Amino acid sequence: MNRFKVLVEYDGTGLVGWQRQRSGRSVQEILERAILGYCGEEVTVTGAGRTDAGVHALGQVAHFDLNHSTTAKTVRDALNDHIRKNSDGPRQVSILSSELVSNDFHARFSAVSRRYVYRIINRLGPLTLENSRAWHIFQSIDDESMHEAAQILVGKHDFTTFRSVHCQASSPKKTIDSLLVWRDGENIWLEAIARSFLHNQVRAMTGSLVEVGIGKSSSEMITKALESRDRTNCGPTAPAAGLYLAEVRYS
Amino acid sequence: MNRFKVLVEYDGTGLVGWQRQRSGRSVQEILERAILGYCGEEVTVTGAGRTDAGVHALGQVAHFDLNHSTTAKTVRDALNDHIRKNSDGPRQVSILSSELVSNDFHARFSAVSRRYVYRIINRLGPLTLENSRAWHIFQSIDDESMHEAAQILVGKHDFTTFRSVHCQASSPKKTIDSLLVWRDGENIWLEAIARSFLHNQVRAMTGSLVEVGIGKSSSEMITKALESRDRTNCGPTAPAAGLYLAEVRYS
Repeated sequence: MNRFKVLVEYDGTGLVGWQRQRSGRSVQEILERAILGYCGEEVTVTGAGRTDAGVHALGQVAHFDLNHSTTAKTVRDALNDHIRKNSDGPRQVSILSSELVSNDFHARFSAVSRRYVYRIINRLGPLTLENSRAWHIFQSIDDESMHEAAQILVGKHDFTTFRSVHCQASSPKKTIDSLLVWRDGENIWLEAIARSFLHNQVRAMTGSLVEVGIGKSSSEMITKALESRDRTNCGPTAPAAGLYLAEVRYS
Repeated sequence: MNRFKVLVEYDGTGLVGWQRQRSGRSVQEILERAILGYCGEEVTVTGAGRTDAGVHALGQVAHFDLNHSTTAKTVRDALNDHIRKNSDGPRQVSILSSELVSNDFHARFSAVSRRYVYRIINRLGPLTLENSRAWHIFQSIDDESMHEAAQILVGKHDFTTFRSVHCQASSPKKTIDSLLVWRDGENIWLEAIARSFLHNQVRAMTGSLVEVGIGKSSSEMITKALESRDRTNCGPTAPAAGLYLAEVRYS
């Protein structure tokens, strides 16, 4: 048995997310179908992060096992080829690289950190090229006050306030290693790094921080919201379209 | 009569280009239809650059005249609103800003320089998020040799070699003020600035410079191609998808 680790990029627009579901196309299904087409093996592909519908990935990591003996390069090219063949529109999923790994490597459990990036476009005019790729906010945003408020969330906390009601994690406690917000022209970027996140945590934190950025909330209110451990004190959840799983690290 | 200058962004994917044509949707038609819907006036919208099918704009400039008396802000918001109403898919055209200008302002003839940007993504994996937004090249590219060869094209030259057979300009002589090529991670950017360009000139120059970058051609061959004034000595024309009209300047 050969275990392959793949680095995957995807445009999450129109997909139901990473995880296979009864209705709609998922990244997992697209990969599993490509593997079946390539070598006839029905495998389960395990991803490092179960991104939601509409969320993108620049560097999702996944693994799967093949009985079929082949090279990592062939796996990369064959999967890309089968993904293209199985698709009736523009390519949504791409294998950026592939490597043969030891059988104890696990895309999800071996990961030591995940980096998500959230992109906001802050301008008056509606989006065209960045449709479904960013959150368009026309109100003026103070990125420095967003960054300042973000520092309250860094460290180990009970993130019940910033957790989806559908979250399946056993504990609401997570440790945010880094949470940066900065402006680059009309773009406002938020970068969050942690070993792992709760379901919807990055989008929930982003939504609350944007309220600070547009002056509807304050650092003090972020502190209170965090301490309240109450989902109803969270700002609106930021749209999926602006979120990117940028990188997964392994020791 | 009030003349309005608008700054326009568009995703050229699926459009026939700037100019109104019998078949297919053009940016000009989308704007003229939005103006008609807004105030009932049938006007001609004049653009600074007549971009081809599939070419994008970050900063196209256009002007038009209205009998209707209104503010520039209202024009911006009303056109954006009507473009949305008239569209059955994701927004392709956006008015970023609008201003009332004097009647001697002309989007095309008053322009003193145009800046185009060409984006190449240089990596093995196929594109997803940047589908239709960049040229995917998987061969290794030497951006420094591309930049060096590009300098041969700077200045005033007869650009017959790099001109489309459909070009309607009276003279093949143009002056390139600046032509830069640089790498930023997996992206290779080309930036071209001139008062004006011949039809297909930026894409033709990009295609020939890429041949240098991948080692199929050389600086010497660019010199010879330019001096030959012969279209058949030009490399393949770079795809429309990577080209952006980035900026138009006025004195």
